[in-house]
Amino acid sequence: MQKSIKNIAFAGSGNVAWHLAQALKLQGFHISGIWSRDFSKAESLAKACNSVACAEVSGLCKGSDLIVIAAPDNAIGEIVSAIGNYEGLVVHTAGSVSLEVLKNSFEHSGVFYPLQTFSKEISVEINHVPFFIEASNRYDFETLMSVASKLSSKVYAADSNQRLLLHVAAVFAGNYSNLMYVIGNELLTNSNLPLEVLHPLISATANKAIVGNPLQTQTGPARRNDTVTIEKHLAALAALPEYAELYQLLANLISKKYK
Amino acid sequence: MQKSIKNIAFAGSGNVAWHLAQALKLQGFHISGIWSRDFSKAESLAKACNSVACAEVSGLCKGSDLIVIAAPDNAIGEIVSAIGNYEGLVVHTAGSVSLEVLKNSFEHSGVFYPLQTFSKEISVEINHVPFFIEASNRYDFETLMSVASKLSSKVYAADSNQRLLLHVAAVFAGNYSNLMYVIGNELLTNSNLPLEVLHPLISATANKAIVGNPLQTQTGPARRNDTVTIEKHLAALAALPEYAELYQLLANLISKKYK
Repeated sequence: MQKSIKNIAFAGSGNVAWHLAQALKLQGFHISGIWSRDFSKAESLAKACNSVACAEVSGLCKGSDLIVIAAPDNAIGEIVSAIGNYEGLVVHTAGSVSLEVLKNSFEHSGVFYPLQTFSKEISVEINHVPFFIEASNRYDFETLMSVASKLSSKVYAADSNQRLLLHVAAVFAGNYSNLMYVIGNELLTNSNLPLEVLHPLISATANKAIVGNPLQTQTGPARRNDTVTIEKHLAALAALPEYAELYQLLANLISKKYK
Repeated sequence: MQKSIKNIAFAGSGNVAWHLAQALKLQGFHISGIWSRDFSKAESLAKACNSVACAEVSGLCKGSDLIVIAAPDNAIGEIVSAIGNYEGLVVHTAGSVSLEVLKNSFEHSGVFYPLQTFSKEISVEINHVPFFIEASNRYDFETLMSVASKLSSKVYAADSNQRLLLHVAAVFAGNYSNLMYVIGNELLTNSNLPLEVLHPLISATANKAIVGNPLQTQTGPARRNDTVTIEKHLAALAALPEYAELYQLLANLISKKYK
């Protein structure tokens, strides 16, 4: 039987908590309390979603049906201990933390993982964000699927192993593609050109990967085995040996894929 | 004095020629002829921009004011020889080829480099594409700036050294970010999850880099020095040692930037 969730508390006030708590509030849930290591941050988020800041983690238990731990991975264990006995449902939002850390301490537990990059100052279309759900039993799973479905049209089941690989995939497609932009910008700065000249390329590359398949839309010197251009580029990177090494490694990976 | 350009011929019928010739035609230029190593491709492009296919490179000279060499880098030298004596302006569109290869053979030469990823089947908003211009003298430079300005609102001067670095920057921000999407997709396939779950992340990461500065919007385990998660990810990649090596290298680069 699916449990009815009305009151949701948050342990954490970082980027994920910031967006999730407000999105849940908008969908009619009551945010019953927010705890954060930094009390003033708990107060800011509480203000933004008509909630109250709690001085102690244990304060989240009273009057809540669900506690969402949206905190750094290495803080989850401590928060679990601080929650103590709790009869409601406890979830975390981490890609690379297994369900086990909650399962051993609570009767009802699960994972509520949104695959997106969150920054406080940038709004997110939450209904497009994929959510990945896991739970300690079938009933709690259905409860969490139902909560997630109110936020997003893209809700999936994923066990802890799938979620870990998903997180690695997200690091490549998100964090590491961003690093490629950072390096591109550095090279532009070195040649006295404005950063905005890369924007249409960044945007078109991302769009192509979404409309089509990036394996098919791959272009560039390595894709066409243009070793003369690759050599020129490596020479141009001579003063930046770390980038030259990276350029070569990535060129080799591409060449191997298409040979 | 700026030369008046009316008739433009193309040597090449690949992705760049395909988009440039049609965009120039739309702006009122006459595409006077198209040569390609593959005659049937020259015919297709000629059809698309009300032009004629030429069987020989030298056929491009007659009745043209400008010849655009939009061909693979290693074919440019041969095309230059095949053009022979020509009194008009000759440009190439390559990021990593210096102006010298044309300057030695023609009185009027230049470079007309569009910084974008082109695929025949995907339309391009040419007026947002940055163009980088170089020429053998001030008059030819002004002529090319004027032609480029009819296509795009973003036209810049760049000498051969700047253009080379620009091309390297584009390889990182375009080709290599695309490789990160490819790897992300592979990992999803391995864990039986649909590729579309990465799309909102890809799109949000690119948008953040355009609205803000990717150096500031970098997120992820390496950014927060989360070595526990990094170790979990490396363990998850144990069966894919090339990706594990790449993961570690990129994590190290990020850690160094923010320490």
